[in-house]
Amino acid sequence: MAGHGGDIYRRAMDLGISPEEIIDFSSNINLLGPPESLKGILNGSFGLIKNYPDPEYSELRKSLAHFNRTEPLNIIPGNGATELIHLVPRALKPARALIVAPTFSEYAKALSQAGTESEHFMLREEDNFRIDIDSLIREMDRGYRFMIICNPNNPTGNFIGLPEIERIAARARELDITVMVDESFIEFMDNWRESTSALLAEKYPNLIVLRSMTKFFAIPGLRLGYLISHDRGMIKKIISMKEPWTVNIFADLSAGLLLNEANYIKESVLALNREREILCSELGRIKGIKFFHPEANFILIKILTGMTSAALKEKLLGHRILIRDASNFRYLDSSFVRIAVRRRDDNMALVAAMGKCLG
Amino acid sequence: MAGHGGDIYRRAMDLGISPEEIIDFSSNINLLGPPESLKGILNGSFGLIKNYPDPEYSELRKSLAHFNRTEPLNIIPGNGATELIHLVPRALKPARALIVAPTFSEYAKALSQAGTESEHFMLREEDNFRIDIDSLIREMDRGYRFMIICNPNNPTGNFIGLPEIERIAARARELDITVMVDESFIEFMDNWRESTSALLAEKYPNLIVLRSMTKFFAIPGLRLGYLISHDRGMIKKIISMKEPWTVNIFADLSAGLLLNEANYIKESVLALNREREILCSELGRIKGIKFFHPEANFILIKILTGMTSAALKEKLLGHRILIRDASNFRYLDSSFVRIAVRRRDDNMALVAAMGKCLG
Repeated sequence: MAGHGGDIYRRAMDLGISPEEIIDFSSNINLLGPPESLKGILNGSFGLIKNYPDPEYSELRKSLAHFNRTEPLNIIPGNGATELIHLVPRALKPARALIVAPTFSEYAKALSQAGTESEHFMLREEDNFRIDIDSLIREMDRGYRFMIICNPNNPTGNFIGLPEIERIAARARELDITVMVDESFIEFMDNWRESTSALLAEKYPNLIVLRSMTKFFAIPGLRLGYLISHDRGMIKKIISMKEPWTVNIFADLSAGLLLNEANYIKESVLALNREREILCSELGRIKGIKFFHPEANFILIKILTGMTSAALKEKLLGHRILIRDASNFRYLDSSFVRIAVRRRDDNMALVAAMGKCLG
Repeated sequence: MAGHGGDIYRRAMDLGISPEEIIDFSSNINLLGPPESLKGILNGSFGLIKNYPDPEYSELRKSLAHFNRTEPLNIIPGNGATELIHLVPRALKPARALIVAPTFSEYAKALSQAGTESEHFMLREEDNFRIDIDSLIREMDRGYRFMIICNPNNPTGNFIGLPEIERIAARARELDITVMVDESFIEFMDNWRESTSALLAEKYPNLIVLRSMTKFFAIPGLRLGYLISHDRGMIKKIISMKEPWTVNIFADLSAGLLLNEANYIKESVLALNREREILCSELGRIKGIKFFHPEANFILIKILTGMTSAALKEKLLGHRILIRDASNFRYLDSSFVRIAVRRRDDNMALVAAMGKCLG
């Protein structure tokens, strides 16, 4: 059950401290934390815990649809985006899939468990992990039925713009390929409403757009994600394979409130922009690393000194700082780590500690 | 996503009232509701919502193991028992399975989605749905690799004692059949600690015991279940197919508290015994129905007047009472309904309304 970021529990146990004493740069959560108003919703919902969640999640789908200016029937909610990453391949059973990588490892796991054979399309370090669309479009000819693109991409932080996504979607439609675009981090971008693949979902019913509430609203403990598709036949197929009641009643009831937090949403993007700029500028002064300019709330870093990612991670744990050793991402190696952008003082503590560890 | 009890949402919408205005006899929840102390845990946990749940669920497994006097490594927690009902067949991929029925319909759905061919062993109404063990043991010879028994059984309310379960487990071991015993309702029984199949799990590693926190602790909105098995190889296989973070942080943190609520646990069983006896005695006076004596917190009722289960359900909705139309259980028909045992005043309201509807 391990292998991802955010595992503060085992690390805290190893150190003999409580999980809250660790500054966690390994999971990519909104630096503001969840909006305080959520607390009221959760406290007020205790009386409803004795009810099953609505098996149709009607109100939840309405809230998610409204936020995304689409219809509730185009939405499937999930127990985090993770449920949907696993459910979609299981429902569609594609024979062969293409994953743009390095990327979130759960895609390959989900496809393999669904019995799908998957290939990886490599993003090259020499291109700063930017995608070569022409080359991807050529690769798509090779008999795939399914593709996964994480956008912005975890862990590289790159974003593929809408014109490029449309080229991919159009070619995929010709080739009968379903394209799942995981936009778990997109709300961190200033202009996401103009650049989300959801804008193409009506024109390209072969598009599935995946979203997470976890990262932007800082609620990984609550578990809520969703997908958007305009292909009602596909929606029906996916729902027919879905387990009942996977979204708990607190997650169900919270979505409406969270999506209406206009100020929190605006302030989150501003705060990220501000802190990311300062953090990048500070990272730029550390000798012995380079970083890849991110469009999301995390930063991929390459260690140039020869120190391994595992060694740096261990050293930083001595400072009670947890980073993500990125060496287990396909096409990365033990020179890569990933960090989240956090609040100013945490970021400064990381910069100071990294300077010491590497210097 | 529908077809089970507890769907008060659509019914309330149809009636133009709020879900809380419906007396829900369709979902089988502890009549006391959840312990009040749970509210404190939930309110106090808000600060942890910004963390992912522990991917290993170490503390949760420790609590569940302690309650069941076994080892944490013998436990897998799930997003309700439902996650595990689906996960186990997906992980073990048995070619052919036997389901003792009528029973919870999710088993057949889970097996079918896992690609398992399944047969049903029929419990006969003329036997009051009691199991004929000799006949079941003979049936087991016919090439099965997996069996599911719900015990106490939903919707019939019957319980199979430990000696009979051991006969089944022993024969299954000889035949290389994994037996999953779903004990989602067992804690409602006085003597469950002496009659749980978990007592056999060490001797019979081909046994999987499934439990739910949903029913006994009245927390269907929270989503928590687990399984117990002493076959570490099988546990590993199941975990390898498990999606990460399926149990939300509130469910994770609540288990320890709930399982330590000794007074609540005792009082729940006493209250059920008392109210069930009174309700059964009142039901006995209603002409035009018979009921099957239950060992759990719900009662299967047969309508003898010719009125259909759907018609009775609709009529009772006029009294803002929701019952479970049991006609869609395999081997039952439109003369069957199922009701939960609730608090005295609710039960009396049901009895009065049923008398009117049928009389």
